[in-house]
Amino acid sequence: MSVTYPRGFLSAGISAGIKAGNKKDLALVFSEEPAVTAGVSTTNKFKAASLLLSLAHLRQAGEKQAVLLNSGNANAINGREGMAITSRIVSALAQALKIDLPSVLFASTGKIGLLLPEKKIVGALPKLIKNLSQNSAPAARAIMTTDRVPKETVRETGISGRTGMVRIGGMAKGAGMIKPELATMLVVLTTDAVIEKEALQLALREAVNQSFNLITVDDDQSTNDFVVILANGKAANPRIKKETKEFALFQEELTGCCLELARKLVADGEGAHKVMVVKVTGAWSLKDARRVSRRIAGSNLVKTALAGESPNWGRILASAGSCAARMNPQTTTLSLAGTMVFDAGEITAYSEKTIHQALAAPEIEIALDLGIGNFSATAYGCDLTEDYVKINKDYS
Amino acid sequence: MSVTYPRGFLSAGISAGIKAGNKKDLALVFSEEPAVTAGVSTTNKFKAASLLLSLAHLRQAGEKQAVLLNSGNANAINGREGMAITSRIVSALAQALKIDLPSVLFASTGKIGLLLPEKKIVGALPKLIKNLSQNSAPAARAIMTTDRVPKETVRETGISGRTGMVRIGGMAKGAGMIKPELATMLVVLTTDAVIEKEALQLALREAVNQSFNLITVDDDQSTNDFVVILANGKAANPRIKKETKEFALFQEELTGCCLELARKLVADGEGAHKVMVVKVTGAWSLKDARRVSRRIAGSNLVKTALAGESPNWGRILASAGSCAARMNPQTTTLSLAGTMVFDAGEITAYSEKTIHQALAAPEIEIALDLGIGNFSATAYGCDLTEDYVKINKDYS
Repeated sequence: MSVTYPRGFLSAGISAGIKAGNKKDLALVFSEEPAVTAGVSTTNKFKAASLLLSLAHLRQAGEKQAVLLNSGNANAINGREGMAITSRIVSALAQALKIDLPSVLFASTGKIGLLLPEKKIVGALPKLIKNLSQNSAPAARAIMTTDRVPKETVRETGISGRTGMVRIGGMAKGAGMIKPELATMLVVLTTDAVIEKEALQLALREAVNQSFNLITVDDDQSTNDFVVILANGKAANPRIKKETKEFALFQEELTGCCLELARKLVADGEGAHKVMVVKVTGAWSLKDARRVSRRIAGSNLVKTALAGESPNWGRILASAGSCAARMNPQTTTLSLAGTMVFDAGEITAYSEKTIHQALAAPEIEIALDLGIGNFSATAYGCDLTEDYVKINKDYS
Repeated sequence: MSVTYPRGFLSAGISAGIKAGNKKDLALVFSEEPAVTAGVSTTNKFKAASLLLSLAHLRQAGEKQAVLLNSGNANAINGREGMAITSRIVSALAQALKIDLPSVLFASTGKIGLLLPEKKIVGALPKLIKNLSQNSAPAARAIMTTDRVPKETVRETGISGRTGMVRIGGMAKGAGMIKPELATMLVVLTTDAVIEKEALQLALREAVNQSFNLITVDDDQSTNDFVVILANGKAANPRIKKETKEFALFQEELTGCCLELARKLVADGEGAHKVMVVKVTGAWSLKDARRVSRRIAGSNLVKTALAGESPNWGRILASAGSCAARMNPQTTTLSLAGTMVFDAGEITAYSEKTIHQALAAPEIEIALDLGIGNFSATAYGCDLTEDYVKINKDYS
């Protein structure tokens, strides 16, 4: 259970023939009651047809009730016909579910520049709806593309409602075309909290900033990124409002969910064998701290050094130094995999062998202290291997 | 002949034992007469000791006469001791050449975080000076790191002097850690022009903007990037001043030299098998045009698609759309390797086979028309192959 862990949510995942070989490729998340909904999406100028429709529906007042997702086709950059097909698929789903059209959202992932197989998808909708259940595994699997494993999360908050503790659940897909500064994958989160829409949007934005906006696989930005949360109120708790103790509790758990999914995304980065955790401290501003940590996590040279378990720390500082952020070599200290290699402007007497051995671990910490301020940020990345190249050469 | 093509320039390249296996690793470019000099360097906060010394010397008034270069060691991020060694090496060279200390410049390339082998280099200086000749090949070879071929250029301008036509020559090294928005490699240019210092700096800046600032291999920024031009006046032409016909001629040929070297750099990009030429037209501003063309040339997903000769044009538009630049899908047109695939917001009826065949060529053109303005820019990049990963995993 993940998206179905909060009360009143069902999900399904089936094969609609979008992908070859009878693989699951169509998912539905459904709330028994209309849900307060918030979303965050890519800023790409070439937004997918599915996303454009979802954004239009989100702009309309009223609660949402269903999220349709497909893999195997990004439904992006495919012109007027792509948009028309999208509308017809979503209309068919709304009719079949007997809910208002604007209460349906749609998210797609896969190859860009192709039309969706409309007949196959519309034909599969009855089966999809029939399969709705509390088992979230088929849905989590149906949204996978190059992902090696499904990604799910569940949390219980400390907030009590009449039917029990407020719960949060979520699932995500994403392995490539991942870059920070925006939500960069498909993520569906659910909660049974009773919460104000404005508070929900605020909590989601902050959770995304602290999680999905600080991870990178290849610094490529998708046309389809979409993070959405539905809150159906089934926990029957007193309504959560901004700037309250309950909001802080909800925020903490939602951020926890997003961070867990975000770490699962980088660990499953295309071709990745290692996760890198880049902790930047002592920055002049939060913006500087985030910028530097993301830059290091995104550097192809740092990523390949990591793949080779090479103690080539100079690349880390070169990457940091290329940022438009306040920095001074004389106050900078760097630790790589637990060994301090550079201390306030000077190379330390480190053992290359020790670092090399430590780099064999599956998770590597890079700790950079800029020594000029009080702000910090942690970014997450992965190594760059020959497998990443192979996966993306052969993708289409 | 390249840097020695203009009158009055000599060069040498020898092995000083910085690299293993008796490979050439120390080069000198020497002007018989003091030369008006201009330079452009990396904006990285962790500048190499060699570069810091060169920048200090460039800030001092007076002409320059010698450029020392080494490969096999970046002489970067190596603390106070690194700086002290650098000063002593350059002092030794100035004494041996019997020229003023500030007239010597120094550039290094190789691994970051190591001290230069001072004794070896100082010990090799007499041989280096003895080897000075009009043969530029040893110098061009001695500055190579992961480069597969030396990179040289020569031009004759249409400007007459008493001793003949004004000439320009140059050599460059660079294959990885290459990103735009700054000079991103070591380049030494020479000319026998008589030219004002201000005009020379202006011409260099513009030439770099149109060449080295529009190429990318891996979007990683080096600590050592340095482009320098020495003008020794041996052509005895009337002094070239800004905003004259002669300046325009000089500018054109200097830009030509830089563009030739820049194209040679991307063609020799680490692990690269293909060059991509990204022409962006119809942009709202020059900044937008440059930003979009560079972004596409730097996208890992576009680069791997190119490596796989995959007609996956959606990645090109996704990459363009991720830029902070004015854009509208409905006015956007894209051609890949000679075939229009996207025309004013709609997918064309292109033949995937035709594109796939065209992608077998060693140079691939991506032509993106944004259809909203009159500005254009061309960026140069290369494909991303398993070999890039291999080279950079095993580098240290």
